[in-house]
Amino acid sequence: MQVPAGKLLQTINQPSDLKRFGEEDLERISQELRQYIIDVVSVNGGHFAASLGVVELTVALHYVLNTPYDQLVWDVGHQAYGHKILTGRRDVFHTNRMHGGISGFPKRSESEYDTFGVGHSSTSISAALGMAVASQYKGETDRQHVAVIGDGSMGAGMAFEALNHAGIENSNILVILNDNNMSIDPNVGALKEYLADITTSKSYNRFRDDMAYVLGKLSSVGPDAFKIAKKIEKSIKGTLLKQSNFFEALKFRYFGPIDGHDVKHLVKVLRDLRDIPGPKLLHCVTVKGKGYALAEKDQTKWHAPGLFDKITGEIKKATYDKPQPPKFQDVFGHTIIELAEQNSKIMGITPAMPSGSSLNLMMKAMPKRAFDVGIAEQHAVTFSAGLATQGLTPFCNIYSSFMQRAYDQVIHDVAIQKLNVVFCLDRAGLAGADGGTHHGAYDLAYMRCIPNLVVSSPMNEEELRNLMYTAQLDNAGPFVIRYPRGNGVMVDWKRPFKAIPVGKGRKICDGEEVAILTIGAIGNEATKALAQLNADGLYPAHYDMRFVKPLDQALLHEVFKKYSKIITVEDGCLEGGMGSAILEFMADNNYQAQVTRLGIPDMVIEHGEQPELWADCGYDAAAIVKAVEAFGMKANAHIIAS
Amino acid sequence: MQVPAGKLLQTINQPSDLKRFGEEDLERISQELRQYIIDVVSVNGGHFAASLGVVELTVALHYVLNTPYDQLVWDVGHQAYGHKILTGRRDVFHTNRMHGGISGFPKRSESEYDTFGVGHSSTSISAALGMAVASQYKGETDRQHVAVIGDGSMGAGMAFEALNHAGIENSNILVILNDNNMSIDPNVGALKEYLADITTSKSYNRFRDDMAYVLGKLSSVGPDAFKIAKKIEKSIKGTLLKQSNFFEALKFRYFGPIDGHDVKHLVKVLRDLRDIPGPKLLHCVTVKGKGYALAEKDQTKWHAPGLFDKITGEIKKATYDKPQPPKFQDVFGHTIIELAEQNSKIMGITPAMPSGSSLNLMMKAMPKRAFDVGIAEQHAVTFSAGLATQGLTPFCNIYSSFMQRAYDQVIHDVAIQKLNVVFCLDRAGLAGADGGTHHGAYDLAYMRCIPNLVVSSPMNEEELRNLMYTAQLDNAGPFVIRYPRGNGVMVDWKRPFKAIPVGKGRKICDGEEVAILTIGAIGNEATKALAQLNADGLYPAHYDMRFVKPLDQALLHEVFKKYSKIITVEDGCLEGGMGSAILEFMADNNYQAQVTRLGIPDMVIEHGEQPELWADCGYDAAAIVKAVEAFGMKANAHIIAS
Repeated sequence: MQVPAGKLLQTINQPSDLKRFGEEDLERISQELRQYIIDVVSVNGGHFAASLGVVELTVALHYVLNTPYDQLVWDVGHQAYGHKILTGRRDVFHTNRMHGGISGFPKRSESEYDTFGVGHSSTSISAALGMAVASQYKGETDRQHVAVIGDGSMGAGMAFEALNHAGIENSNILVILNDNNMSIDPNVGALKEYLADITTSKSYNRFRDDMAYVLGKLSSVGPDAFKIAKKIEKSIKGTLLKQSNFFEALKFRYFGPIDGHDVKHLVKVLRDLRDIPGPKLLHCVTVKGKGYALAEKDQTKWHAPGLFDKITGEIKKATYDKPQPPKFQDVFGHTIIELAEQNSKIMGITPAMPSGSSLNLMMKAMPKRAFDVGIAEQHAVTFSAGLATQGLTPFCNIYSSFMQRAYDQVIHDVAIQKLNVVFCLDRAGLAGADGGTHHGAYDLAYMRCIPNLVVSSPMNEEELRNLMYTAQLDNAGPFVIRYPRGNGVMVDWKRPFKAIPVGKGRKICDGEEVAILTIGAIGNEATKALAQLNADGLYPAHYDMRFVKPLDQALLHEVFKKYSKIITVEDGCLEGGMGSAILEFMADNNYQAQVTRLGIPDMVIEHGEQPELWADCGYDAAAIVKAVEAFGMKANAHIIAS
Repeated sequence: MQVPAGKLLQTINQPSDLKRFGEEDLERISQELRQYIIDVVSVNGGHFAASLGVVELTVALHYVLNTPYDQLVWDVGHQAYGHKILTGRRDVFHTNRMHGGISGFPKRSESEYDTFGVGHSSTSISAALGMAVASQYKGETDRQHVAVIGDGSMGAGMAFEALNHAGIENSNILVILNDNNMSIDPNVGALKEYLADITTSKSYNRFRDDMAYVLGKLSSVGPDAFKIAKKIEKSIKGTLLKQSNFFEALKFRYFGPIDGHDVKHLVKVLRDLRDIPGPKLLHCVTVKGKGYALAEKDQTKWHAPGLFDKITGEIKKATYDKPQPPKFQDVFGHTIIELAEQNSKIMGITPAMPSGSSLNLMMKAMPKRAFDVGIAEQHAVTFSAGLATQGLTPFCNIYSSFMQRAYDQVIHDVAIQKLNVVFCLDRAGLAGADGGTHHGAYDLAYMRCIPNLVVSSPMNEEELRNLMYTAQLDNAGPFVIRYPRGNGVMVDWKRPFKAIPVGKGRKICDGEEVAILTIGAIGNEATKALAQLNADGLYPAHYDMRFVKPLDQALLHEVFKKYSKIITVEDGCLEGGMGSAILEFMADNNYQAQVTRLGIPDMVIEHGEQPELWADCGYDAAAIVKAVEAFGMKANAHIIAS
């Protein structure tokens, strides 16, 4: 839904328009920008609190910098709505995150102002350093390179690697630390405590008080003593204080902390920093949700609240006549507590996604057994491995696309050593409105090739519970359970646990001629397809494979002996996925059959609602029906290629 | 070759034997341990300088700690030879890294003293923290958990993530920073400079001098002033100094730096630290190669020198009657310079492997265009992406198994954005004596599923050169070139560049009935097999696929039209690899053929010489001959399963 922008904001179609205003107008422009974000997001949805927190910073940056020549990299990108609105996308901002609309994150193909595509955290310093080094190589000495990164993202190892390198390159890079004490959930970790400490200046204040006391004393001793005290102070500031800062230790010049909501002061500081060469860091203190009182109070809830009444703050929830199936996330969250109550070995680990994964339930119920380790997927996995060496059974819950960050740790620290770590891959398959960076498209392929792993995916809530139950049994070994974002299909989901034999699939229904093999919740699209096909007098069989590793060999022998036409369906990439595993079985056992593989084609899938994307990719119920009919009508049909 | 150990060392079969000695014997034991490492490694090969550097630390740790109850985690593991010798493996140490012998790295299945398997860097703090948190949960308050990590490994993001978490857990963990200023090559990065600074104590010395001057002055002012100066000093030490340290900022208690070669002092310090709760870091300064003069002087050369005369220090090189083919690494190193001389866009990037990858040649020839970014694969990839956004063409050279560390960055920062980054994956396929952690077994599978990538592998040196040439042509897009450790097959390798059409394979020879499809240098085993088969009157065809992505569809249509029996050969995992890609093509195009896939089976492959391992895995020349014969003799043969 399109809504009007404020009077000044209406005139700003690109940063050059912003520059025509005097500094005295920047506060009002910031206000209008904030209001526009509130107006649009409240009726269209999207990320909310992060962009409110950097309104003034966004205005100041585009006011001072010569973008896009000067290069501005937003980390993660949740906070870049203001940037999008100021850089030519005000009037399409209402299409944000919608199928065919603009992306919820900066994206190079969308605008020349989006210097680097993001979505995952902590890439901005590396990217900006690459740009800065390139400028240095080309002799573009006047060009500015700025990375804006949150304190949560700064805790990820990748950001540290970039700082460690940038500190020894003499290139022109400014890192702006957007310190709001938050990730999506409250930020955690030692660095966060350190930042809070230097922001509230406990040490510096104590030191200053001591010095004042001492200087007072010395003044009474005489002018000589006073001079000496000054000398001490200078010495301390000159040597020790320089080294006393985490970022100075990494050879960055540190500035701040400053108020990130004082737009005029920001403009002044950014202007000053333009002229200082080499790596520098500006510590900017902001409030996530700034200017919308409810969001300031409950920042996690208002990270991405959905639609809401901007006046009352009431978050709009869909209402239903009858009970709805739960989210897979909530099934995970409740089930891990149930299991942990029975099995004292179970621990829960999340890298900065307590509320997204619903591990926050266990963190509340069993605080000593559930850990938010911050944005640190690599550490999350190897920390879990360390727990497992001591006979514990950690459930390490990581979104599928973020698990790409810990791929080596899964191989090197867990799989090679056959440690009992249970990986719950949330947001597996096409994730929806977050788009290409967030789809969990590749996990079946990249996990399936690792020895010693069990790789499974539940078709519904009960199966998720039973796979979780199975994974925590003694010596289950490394065990992957992948499930999608969103709701399942069972209202009555809380059924007694039953162990599932590892590597056993299940027959949903017998059939004729054609067998449909599915993995995971997308199998419910096959169920829908079957209802239609049956009504039309077509009766394919349906098997839920449950496991892509180990494959159910007995079941597959049954399938390939009985059926000559096979359709595989997965909410994952076609290259190397479950369909390929079935083809490997077929070749290894010298079966001959026609196999149509449905899944994510070999391209980056954009954002949209999941059902829209499944249809685009050709593996929703309608596409499955078509694939079956194609077999019936003609032998040589291949749906994906058509 | 077995060699005798010194008199005291002979009696030490496990750490409890070491504890029977008095502290006064520890220096001699250290000497004997050092000598034993020199004696054995000089005649059997292996990593060298790293273990010499931690002899005293190793002795002190096992003397003070109650291993294996107390848990000792070695980072990377290059330095753990002394540990192996003291923990029951003295008499098998001569089998180190040999086929069937002990592993060159700590390994859980080898000894209860090896608490955590390693090989890749920077995992130790995460693992030890997991152990420490498990102990805390179980109430084992007396248990010690120690991670020994080098300053090079400390620069990797994963180590930072672990420090950031450990700092807020109140569990009993001691991190020993083994600061020798080296990775395999000299360490780089801001943290390294910081450590050098605090070790040489420049700032502290300057501060102390200033204070002495001031105190002197104040004394002359009077006793009151002297008291005041003391108060200042105390205040500074109490607040500022505590925060003045990088590790203290992360809430670790910092101790050191201390001399890592003074075994008695080490024993004292480690005893003291045992009683201090919470996270602590001991900064230990050591010399890599300590005690072997040549190794101290050229630490990179002596990281893993091969066989050598321990008296003269002469490194033994195999001699040949005629010129030998070069290593793929050297072909890369020389070729990138040749290309960069012609194309000013080319830059070179390595994460801490300049000598291993041979990028050191370019770093020397073109220092402004070649970067060692430290042990930081994630940053290396995204830094390369940043360079590519500015129109440059970075060649980012990363060992295949280390690329697992940057998997998300390949997807999220390079592939999704279609940036022109060339990934040279060194040590692809089975890597030899380094074993399971270092095999580049999975890259074809985990790269093939990513959209927008070109994934290629050269069969020989000329092909490597031509693929590199092709990859740097305008808009080639993200381009993967994987090649193995070791020598190629062409003495006369430096031929003029020729562009290779992307996605085109090549026919090596026509044949009858059976077609062998290979990818990469393992294709030379097929060439050997063909020589034997031809001699026996069998004539299979041979195709070098060159690319697994995009596949050469035209070539495959030719193959599947002409041949009904196909053998695929790859130096990579069978799950999801090139063979699977061929099966996908076959299914998508509705061809029927018998396909035998040869490659790495679904298990962790141990260490050994490459030809030994290829034979074990069933894809050397002999195995290819067998696979062809199996087709000839019987239709339904599957080599791998047998």
